[in-house]
Amino acid sequence: MSTATVNHQLRLAARPVGLATDADWRFTKEPVPAPAAGQVQVQVLALSLDPAMRGWMNEGRSYIAPVAIGEVMRAGGIGRVAESRDPAFAPWDLVGGLFGAQEWACLPAPALQKIDLRLGTVPQWLNVLGMPGMTAYFGLLDVGRPEPGQTVVVSGAAGAVGQTVGQLAKIKGCRAVGIAGGAAKCDRVVGELGFDACIDYKAGSVREGLKQHCPQGVDVYFDNVGGEILDLVLAKLAPKARVVICGAISQYNATAPVPGPKNYLSLLVHRARMEGFVVFDYAPRFAPAVAELAGWLQDGRLKSREDVVDGGIAAFPRTLNRLFAGENFGKLVLRVAPF
Amino acid sequence: MSTATVNHQLRLAARPVGLATDADWRFTKEPVPAPAAGQVQVQVLALSLDPAMRGWMNEGRSYIAPVAIGEVMRAGGIGRVAESRDPAFAPWDLVGGLFGAQEWACLPAPALQKIDLRLGTVPQWLNVLGMPGMTAYFGLLDVGRPEPGQTVVVSGAAGAVGQTVGQLAKIKGCRAVGIAGGAAKCDRVVGELGFDACIDYKAGSVREGLKQHCPQGVDVYFDNVGGEILDLVLAKLAPKARVVICGAISQYNATAPVPGPKNYLSLLVHRARMEGFVVFDYAPRFAPAVAELAGWLQDGRLKSREDVVDGGIAAFPRTLNRLFAGENFGKLVLRVAPF
Repeated sequence: MSTATVNHQLRLAARPVGLATDADWRFTKEPVPAPAAGQVQVQVLALSLDPAMRGWMNEGRSYIAPVAIGEVMRAGGIGRVAESRDPAFAPWDLVGGLFGAQEWACLPAPALQKIDLRLGTVPQWLNVLGMPGMTAYFGLLDVGRPEPGQTVVVSGAAGAVGQTVGQLAKIKGCRAVGIAGGAAKCDRVVGELGFDACIDYKAGSVREGLKQHCPQGVDVYFDNVGGEILDLVLAKLAPKARVVICGAISQYNATAPVPGPKNYLSLLVHRARMEGFVVFDYAPRFAPAVAELAGWLQDGRLKSREDVVDGGIAAFPRTLNRLFAGENFGKLVLRVAPF
Repeated sequence: MSTATVNHQLRLAARPVGLATDADWRFTKEPVPAPAAGQVQVQVLALSLDPAMRGWMNEGRSYIAPVAIGEVMRAGGIGRVAESRDPAFAPWDLVGGLFGAQEWACLPAPALQKIDLRLGTVPQWLNVLGMPGMTAYFGLLDVGRPEPGQTVVVSGAAGAVGQTVGQLAKIKGCRAVGIAGGAAKCDRVVGELGFDACIDYKAGSVREGLKQHCPQGVDVYFDNVGGEILDLVLAKLAPKARVVICGAISQYNATAPVPGPKNYLSLLVHRARMEGFVVFDYAPRFAPAVAELAGWLQDGRLKSREDVVDGGIAAFPRTLNRLFAGENFGKLVLRVAPF
């Protein structure tokens, strides 16, 4: 167990305009907190970096309250129990939770989830077995409802959610077509993850790519990016198509009002639906979903790719911005302590 | 039976840019056509004027082929059988069908529907018992799926589809809030049709109106208009809301690319869905729907308002444009021959 006495933290200092800069953050040091009765003291090992974090930094009503100015930045992660004042946890237990961007956290026991390394590694628990996996699983299967033989298109295909969406589509007997930025990423999406095709939006026409790879139209579109790509896919929908609105990473740092999908009337022509969801709503069903995903992971049908960055809390701001530059392949994870 | 020998027709002469003008139309005269074997000769009594007609005049792929240049304008109507060469129909039968903008038409018998005046008048058969009624019925009940106590908002509330949507919402135990243009229309929507409220988009702020009349948010939005009003309602969705995309009359004459609904990410925040539909898909279920609507019409729970215009085929172009000026209250019908 660590003998550290200082807890390094990252707090939100200002509401960013566009991409967050150093001025929007403030690093603080506090004594490592002691657990109260019913609480568990956790040393953070790894933090998840998510596109949604940029939204949490904005003011205004959303599906979750904004991070307050001065507050430790909200972040999910995996940690190791150092001291427990609840019988459900003991030192050395690995746990998942919303620890925030800091090295140590004390949380009430019910806010923690036990992590079983037999099912997956620490980074995998932040990826396929964590929120990105849950997002892909419920967004694709419950909202998108793909049927065998149908064509599933996913944007952000090289990202944490996208990689699992396409692989789940294959497991369900669908044709999986990704959209990603850059030839190297696209090659890996097809070669390593087994998608049928991946359209490089930086290289050529997404419209032509969709025409070539989705000759029968798009039955399910899982949208992580929004913007122009959403519009191009709307124009290629198959009858009764389902458009799953998971995110809009292309718009999260926009400083001007975001344009809407001008091809939305394609929903009418193709009797299609566009539907949003929030993964936290599915919490009561996470456990069986994790079990099913872990099974596919173990029998090799599902691959989990993570991009683990070292540097601790100090590296959090620049690591988060890598997401919006599209520099990561797979789930972006920040290592906070050795694991 | 008429002894006319001339069939006055209206043909599409050019693809309109914006609102159709005289130059986009051509009037023609032909001999009244004689029915071939299996066909029925019909004298047209009344034609339906529909916002969707403007879309049929455009080139390009949609849910239905465009009207070709030189072709008689597509239009549904009610007519009287003059001569039948099919045993299913006899002279004096009243029939509905896609007769086109002309005084006489010969159609194959299976393309005709018998009209029973005991269930409703000729204009009502083009309204509540016709396509607008079917559109309201299946769009609201099958796509929107309102539940008792929920709030249903419908735009174009004084139009053919909108008036029935709001009344069906009331029959199903919902709160019905209309959006329409002008105080006179709004007063009639509430006073005659029994909506709980109607927001006058010409008079004040739709945002404020929604706030006032939908304090719990909007559970079902039935959209006939698109444009800015769609965006304002998206911002007021209740959790798990359904947005039914029926049309976008505000955009049908647009000459610039139509902007999309910039608030579409509200679908994500509110776990909501936006879905399009095409009424013709429900044809196998029209008969029981007509029977149910006719029952409500007869017991007074459902009112049918029509705006019947005289002037025959010659008046078709200017009558169609009245729709886009929002001048009609209820279903706009063109009388072609006395009934």
